[in-house]
Amino acid sequence: MSELLSVLQRCGIAPEEIEGGTLGVRSPIDGAELARVRETTPGEVDALIAKSKEAFQQWRLVPAPVRGELVRLWGDELRHAKRDIGWVVSIEVGKITEEGLGEAQEGVDICEFALGLSRQLHGKTIVSERPGHRIMEQYHPLGPVAVITAFNFPSAVFAWNAALALVCGDPVIFKPSEKAVLSGLATFKALERAIARFGDRAPEGLAQIVIGGASLAEKLVDSPAIPLVSATGSTRMGRIVGPKVASRFGKRILELGGNNAMVVTPAADLDMAVRAILFSAVGTAGQRCTSLRRLIVHRGVKDALLGKLLPAYASLRIGNPLTAGTLVGPLIDQRAFDALQHAIATAKEQGGKVLTGGERALEDEFPNGWYVRPAIVEMPAQTAIVREETFGPLLYVIAYDDFDEAIAIHNDVPQGLSSCIFSNDLREVEAFLSAAGSDCGMANVNIGPSGAEIGGAFGGEKETGGDRESGSDAWKQYMRRTTNTINFSKDLPLAQGITFG
Amino acid sequence: MSELLSVLQRCGIAPEEIEGGTLGVRSPIDGAELARVRETTPGEVDALIAKSKEAFQQWRLVPAPVRGELVRLWGDELRHAKRDIGWVVSIEVGKITEEGLGEAQEGVDICEFALGLSRQLHGKTIVSERPGHRIMEQYHPLGPVAVITAFNFPSAVFAWNAALALVCGDPVIFKPSEKAVLSGLATFKALERAIARFGDRAPEGLAQIVIGGASLAEKLVDSPAIPLVSATGSTRMGRIVGPKVASRFGKRILELGGNNAMVVTPAADLDMAVRAILFSAVGTAGQRCTSLRRLIVHRGVKDALLGKLLPAYASLRIGNPLTAGTLVGPLIDQRAFDALQHAIATAKEQGGKVLTGGERALEDEFPNGWYVRPAIVEMPAQTAIVREETFGPLLYVIAYDDFDEAIAIHNDVPQGLSSCIFSNDLREVEAFLSAAGSDCGMANVNIGPSGAEIGGAFGGEKETGGDRESGSDAWKQYMRRTTNTINFSKDLPLAQGITFG
Amino acid sequence: MSELLSVLQRCGIAPEEIEGGTLGVRSPIDGAELARVRETTPGEVDALIAKSKEAFQQWRLVPAPVRGELVRLWGDELRHAKRDIGWVVSIEVGKITEEGLGEAQEGVDICEFALGLSRQLHGKTIVSERPGHRIMEQYHPLGPVAVITAFNFPSAVFAWNAALALVCGDPVIFKPSEKAVLSGLATFKALERAIARFGDRAPEGLAQIVIGGASLAEKLVDSPAIPLVSATGSTRMGRIVGPKVASRFGKRILELGGNNAMVVTPAADLDMAVRAILFSAVGTAGQRCTSLRRLIVHRGVKDALLGKLLPAYASLRIGNPLTAGTLVGPLIDQRAFDALQHAIATAKEQGGKVLTGGERALEDEFPNGWYVRPAIVEMPAQTAIVREETFGPLLYVIAYDDFDEAIAIHNDVPQGLSSCIFSNDLREVEAFLSAAGSDCGMANVNIGPSGAEIGGAFGGEKETGGDRESGSDAWKQYMRRTTNTINFSKDLPLAQGITFG
Amino acid sequence: MSELLSVLQRCGIAPEEIEGGTLGVRSPIDGAELARVRETTPGEVDALIAKSKEAFQQWRLVPAPVRGELVRLWGDELRHAKRDIGWVVSIEVGKITEEGLGEAQEGVDICEFALGLSRQLHGKTIVSERPGHRIMEQYHPLGPVAVITAFNFPSAVFAWNAALALVCGDPVIFKPSEKAVLSGLATFKALERAIARFGDRAPEGLAQIVIGGASLAEKLVDSPAIPLVSATGSTRMGRIVGPKVASRFGKRILELGGNNAMVVTPAADLDMAVRAILFSAVGTAGQRCTSLRRLIVHRGVKDALLGKLLPAYASLRIGNPLTAGTLVGPLIDQRAFDALQHAIATAKEQGGKVLTGGERALEDEFPNGWYVRPAIVEMPAQTAIVREETFGPLLYVIAYDDFDEAIAIHNDVPQGLSSCIFSNDLREVEAFLSAAGSDCGMANVNIGPSGAEIGGAFGGEKETGGDRESGSDAWKQYMRRTTNTINFSKDLPLAQGITFG
Repeated sequence: MSELLSVLQRCGIAPEEIEGGTLGVRSPIDGAELARVRETTPGEVDALIAKSKEAFQQWRLVPAPVRGELVRLWGDELRHAKRDIGWVVSIEVGKITEEGLGEAQEGVDICEFALGLSRQLHGKTIVSERPGHRIMEQYHPLGPVAVITAFNFPSAVFAWNAALALVCGDPVIFKPSEKAVLSGLATFKALERAIARFGDRAPEGLAQIVIGGASLAEKLVDSPAIPLVSATGSTRMGRIVGPKVASRFGKRILELGGNNAMVVTPAADLDMAVRAILFSAVGTAGQRCTSLRRLIVHRGVKDALLGKLLPAYASLRIGNPLTAGTLVGPLIDQRAFDALQHAIATAKEQGGKVLTGGERALEDEFPNGWYVRPAIVEMPAQTAIVREETFGPLLYVIAYDDFDEAIAIHNDVPQGLSSCIFSNDLREVEAFLSAAGSDCGMANVNIGPSGAEIGGAFGGEKETGGDRESGSDAWKQYMRRTTNTINFSKDLPLAQGITFG
Repeated sequence: MSELLSVLQRCGIAPEEIEGGTLGVRSPIDGAELARVRETTPGEVDALIAKSKEAFQQWRLVPAPVRGELVRLWGDELRHAKRDIGWVVSIEVGKITEEGLGEAQEGVDICEFALGLSRQLHGKTIVSERPGHRIMEQYHPLGPVAVITAFNFPSAVFAWNAALALVCGDPVIFKPSEKAVLSGLATFKALERAIARFGDRAPEGLAQIVIGGASLAEKLVDSPAIPLVSATGSTRMGRIVGPKVASRFGKRILELGGNNAMVVTPAADLDMAVRAILFSAVGTAGQRCTSLRRLIVHRGVKDALLGKLLPAYASLRIGNPLTAGTLVGPLIDQRAFDALQHAIATAKEQGGKVLTGGERALEDEFPNGWYVRPAIVEMPAQTAIVREETFGPLLYVIAYDDFDEAIAIHNDVPQGLSSCIFSNDLREVEAFLSAAGSDCGMANVNIGPSGAEIGGAFGGEKETGGDRESGSDAWKQYMRRTTNTINFSKDLPLAQGITFG
Repeated sequence: MSELLSVLQRCGIAPEEIEGGTLGVRSPIDGAELARVRETTPGEVDALIAKSKEAFQQWRLVPAPVRGELVRLWGDELRHAKRDIGWVVSIEVGKITEEGLGEAQEGVDICEFALGLSRQLHGKTIVSERPGHRIMEQYHPLGPVAVITAFNFPSAVFAWNAALALVCGDPVIFKPSEKAVLSGLATFKALERAIARFGDRAPEGLAQIVIGGASLAEKLVDSPAIPLVSATGSTRMGRIVGPKVASRFGKRILELGGNNAMVVTPAADLDMAVRAILFSAVGTAGQRCTSLRRLIVHRGVKDALLGKLLPAYASLRIGNPLTAGTLVGPLIDQRAFDALQHAIATAKEQGGKVLTGGERALEDEFPNGWYVRPAIVEMPAQTAIVREETFGPLLYVIAYDDFDEAIAIHNDVPQGLSSCIFSNDLREVEAFLSAAGSDCGMANVNIGPSGAEIGGAFGGEKETGGDRESGSDAWKQYMRRTTNTINFSKDLPLAQGITFG
Repeated sequence: MSELLSVLQRCGIAPEEIEGGTLGVRSPIDGAELARVRETTPGEVDALIAKSKEAFQQWRLVPAPVRGELVRLWGDELRHAKRDIGWVVSIEVGKITEEGLGEAQEGVDICEFALGLSRQLHGKTIVSERPGHRIMEQYHPLGPVAVITAFNFPSAVFAWNAALALVCGDPVIFKPSEKAVLSGLATFKALERAIARFGDRAPEGLAQIVIGGASLAEKLVDSPAIPLVSATGSTRMGRIVGPKVASRFGKRILELGGNNAMVVTPAADLDMAVRAILFSAVGTAGQRCTSLRRLIVHRGVKDALLGKLLPAYASLRIGNPLTAGTLVGPLIDQRAFDALQHAIATAKEQGGKVLTGGERALEDEFPNGWYVRPAIVEMPAQTAIVREETFGPLLYVIAYDDFDEAIAIHNDVPQGLSSCIFSNDLREVEAFLSAAGSDCGMANVNIGPSGAEIGGAFGGEKETGGDRESGSDAWKQYMRRTTNTINFSKDLPLAQGITFG
């Protein structure tokens, strides 16, 4: 445990910050308490919203390329702290080392991307129909942004949002998941160090953190001083947050549940498919928003695919995620384990056949850790339980006979985050990507549904929320657009050829 | 009345369509009933939603440039019907002839703009961090779009939405205001004629109309089969619609209230300002979303400005909007008149001084028409009533002493639609357009807040709703975006340099 | 012949315009003289350049959306004249009816596309690194544009260039090929009618035509008053025009020779490939810039492909292009025929085997028409003659063994216009489209190299010239860009943090 | 001199690299020889072009975001070496310390900008008019890029070009000015260090340097293996390079002469104008491409402006650029001095009156340094000599009477690089920026013509060359564009509705 203390200290978290608080943080590895963190009080949240509002008045006036310099420094800090942050992510939410590091790397990547954006943030100049007039649109800073994240990407999702928000001229208030406070803090501290290096060009209150539960998140969601709420979590959460923010005319970025599928056709490279399935169904113990949950496979290759997949599942090393060679770490907590059991039981009631896994593992070694053997359940059809998102390493297999049927099954769930096809047949692939194909926000070919890059827009349709983070033009959500028509003539012509008076 | 019948007939509205229905349509000119239109039943609405969903399955597969051809034909029909549609708008909602024609012209303009878009609708191709991979984003059709419009732009707002929706691959369901059914029908019939010319490439149910009241609109708002609801109206309406649509993870375009101001500085060309004020405060009898409602004028030029403005107000011709020379037609109904009276009375209580207008006009000539003399009320400060949108020709005047104060007053209202400054001082003008300036979706220079062109994004921030219509990239709201990563290598590298297994 | 006169008259070409001139226009169908057109004198060219320069001073001030209205009217005229223009193209350059109509349709399409552009022509607004500053870029009209076209697209290429130029604010001077003056005139007259309808918003000299030979073209190329020369033709021509324009710091759009290939892999749909080969190798008698000239086919499917292709070639109907059912019309003139014979003879010397065609056809029926049976020549390797562009229906077949070799052969020619692959194998297809694949400006999948749509950028790399026409952002070449930094503060900070004084 | 050695060593330039060579490098400060550098032989240039071509085969396959990592490392190296590179620039070309540092900072800035681009390089996805088809455009690496720079930005211009080229997938060959070899080497060595850190992902020959004179540059210009030549220098040079590159169908980026003006109107803040004139006319001893050369001032404020400007000129500290407080360093060599004298003499002949300066300074202290007092010459009109670019601190003053005249004078020179206006009058400012205003590639407001930021496109029109570097979409010139139409249907429809066969 002294390793924990020294890593945290390198991350800038002082011993006194993790002692004596009311919020206990446990490692899913063995259930041991890692820290007791002080929770922010409701009154403090109010104060910190007020401070954020003030900070906005200044920050919006700092030129965007200068704001970019802050984000560059943050990226620099994250690069140096990558190993430590990765380690904290692993110990706090159970990711294997490689994935912990990968998550920290996403922070580095988004900072570099945002640095580039800091000289772009382009609106358009537009020709006017009136002589002596011109039109342009500008994007201006929006105001304080609340970033409410989930346990499963405790570092990267904050970085995704904050790097863009800061470059766009918006202060941030970060509310990490109660289950992943240390990872959140470690990432936040790196930002604080960057702010310190950046000096007095950054107003006080530019980046603040709220530690605690849902009631504090709710204060952020309801505050009219916060024009944008970015919230990652369950569809259930989104169904509450969306209307609340809408009722006060706020904006939101919702990243909610996925029920991501892979279509495997007879033209697939099955070996590649197997490797992709492993990473995306089993990685992070199936607890990514983009984890693979449904395998829609052509009946003609189903047995061949399973013939390769089941042995691969059988050889998966489950265990302490910090141990080299481990591929499957623990579930986040018992509740996740119970939900998984419930899903498997329900699937069986609905005709499913468990091909492998589902049982608890390593109970002796880690009586308070919730390890599970990744499960594959073959379903006779896409029943009700398959349409739900179960957050764990549970993969449903459904056979299809013709391609249109595969697409129909694929789209017949309420979520719309990520999807993929394995096929080397151009027509199948393009059909999957077309207007008549996958209805998800992300549709991939010959890679799994997980593992998006920073440069593309990340997010999904339908009950996934409809919003986007990260690349492409996702930054526009963090700004307000203004359309400007400038008349520099001495006349006052009206549009649409109207004359008046 | 026979002129009405013949115009409507040229618009494609048969006599039997406007007789014997349960919904009476009255002209605000004299209160006379123009038509009795049959209302759509709730069951019919259900059927028509189902048909729209089916139509979508086909329409999304029609190539966008071919869809553009339909919109071109619609533009062609609107161009030919421009005079008639303008006339119907005038008689049904009281706009003067020029404005009725201007509104019809907006339909023509948006069709041409959408025709151009039909070969654009660009996503991005994006470089991947992995060898043998590429990323792209595509925009695909979204699904049925409900377009719920207000009485004050009974033709153009439908055209704005439908032209984009149709080009984007979405069927439309149009619910015009109960107060402007004929204008809506006339515009819709032009679309039907275009569809007929377009032939069988258009599926049945591509464009449908719902006639009736708020309860029918609510069915559209609540239907999970309608992924996008575009609604124009009051902030009160938006406060209901927004959360409803959010709760079912739908998308929305809200165009709600404005409280649009003009800042007049000592560097303004006062004569130009006066002309702009006239058109934007008095045009459409102050019943545009973008009507000018607040005049924030430097104390040093206030008297000079009013010295020019009051005589101009005094000479305004109020009367039958179809009569040449009329500049101010009637309010839409008595309720609008009462609201105006209430606002003036409240303003007086709050220290306001009526400089001109507010009284009923032409009562003798049109006992059932609600004409009013446009009012100017000078306020000692921006009191509570000034912060409210009153839909009529009521202009508050507030003096300021320094420029920062003008901006502060300007932004200190809950709405955020349109705004403008009159000044020839570059620094003032640019400050008004800057991040620290107007917080509205539209900020103009030396033109009034009204009269946006098709090419720019139209819409506002804060309680105006935050969404955009018409030009720039507003079309993206009518589509779903999909981010595609294609692996064409034989390897399966992961992003962020992760290795797995 | 009276049909000719009446068609030309409907096109707006008066009988006196085609009589008594020094330039004889012959139909390739039978060699008969169609017209004798007056040639522009060198002095007239000077005068008309001067007039164009003057017209520019006015036209650049007409708002772009208003300029768009002119182009809309032109599109309207072209739509109405489509059948006639198509017919003139057929009779004058020998295209079959369908292709003549297709060419006229391109004019309609580009006018609609340009109409859409007329409200776009977007530059960017850019954030500045200095407080109180902003940056934007605007695109402004450039000046007179000379459009020098070739005989093979006598109508469309002028429309492509002129529609964009006019919308961008540039007057045009059109120099059609001496071999296709009537088609050029017919297209130009439609523009003149549009200008007449447009009225006095168009300055005199906005669109002008020069009739005559290369020496007149040279005057345009050399004139410093013409900032942009768009020239379509041979690489030989481009090698002269490019340096000439560069030496006077003009801009140019060169669309020069192509040597377009199709790669057919074992994963191809051979029936589709055969149909694509027919249209692209034989259509327009092989006289399109994008005609298919090289067939690079996997050795394993070569026989199967030829087994389908040769019978199809055998059944091709050669004849009068205006006769229904004809697929192959005449070559443009004897010189073209001789060049073809020379190429075939040389190919034989270099090891080639003529599989079919090459011989003159219909000599009896049309002693002065140069018809030829489309030829297929199998080559043992890509020899010198294969690297040259021969403008006629001559297709070289080269076998390859592995895919990388196919790409290497494909790229090993000096031209870089268009290319395609027939394959349903995703990896092959994507490799062909990748950075390591085809080096052409256009690379297609499962369609031939011909037949680009208006929406994409058209043009090629290497000796094809490197420039682009038509869609995407090709319009930018017709404008000048200006980067504007506006300081609205009272300070004068320097970029890069420099302090001075 | 030992300071020189140690700085160069810190820059990675070994003592043996600067001894015994045939190319002598002198400091303009005192004419002392700083180094004798070995020149590249013609044979070596051939070899290095061949190596660059090979390197391209590999580098184009390295994913762009990975290429971005190399540029990030270069930026990192430049940041650390900023002080040293700035110092070398100062001693080698005579810039004052602040400007030397500013130049090095541009290298840092462009690396960050290019890093951001490395995940963008966006083409478009485009909707097709044919069912079952889609279109996209991709930008692919182009090939080796030659970067030929001038003495006056010996570090930044290479960085501008190389950072973009490398991110775009192109190897670079750098030919610095013979007068600024050490600055070039110092910047290049930083790139070499970055490449070393980047490791074996960079092919050999990715970045190479050619030391020597014009004949070596010519080899680069003429080589068909180099698809893009970026050359900065005089219009005379461009008139040779442009046609040469065009004759082999290469692409070029020419950044040639400017004759940059400032318009000062009665609405200008004269104090700001004076400061801007000082920096832009006198900074870098008037040897920037963007130096201010013409002052077009309203007759009514001319005396007031000169009344402020002349005393400011009088107090300028001329001297060793490395001494704190110096604002004006030496000219690059005697030839520059002579050219300046010639221009002043000619101006006098053409009616000019020297208001101040022009005489040699510090001759005693630096007998071999060519210092000059910055000159202001009032001209009765814009005579021939004013239309020429004289590279030194010589400012012509021309009075105007009305605004249109100012614009006419402004544009009546053959060059078109940069320009500015000082005015707080919105109409004047916008007119200057409009289609009828400045015809330069850059047009600024209330800042001088110098000092562009990285984010905007840099470059000019007319004899300045017409090309762009640095920001906006300048990167596109370093890539080739490919338009891809993909047919994934089983049909083969043609565009424009053509049917064939």
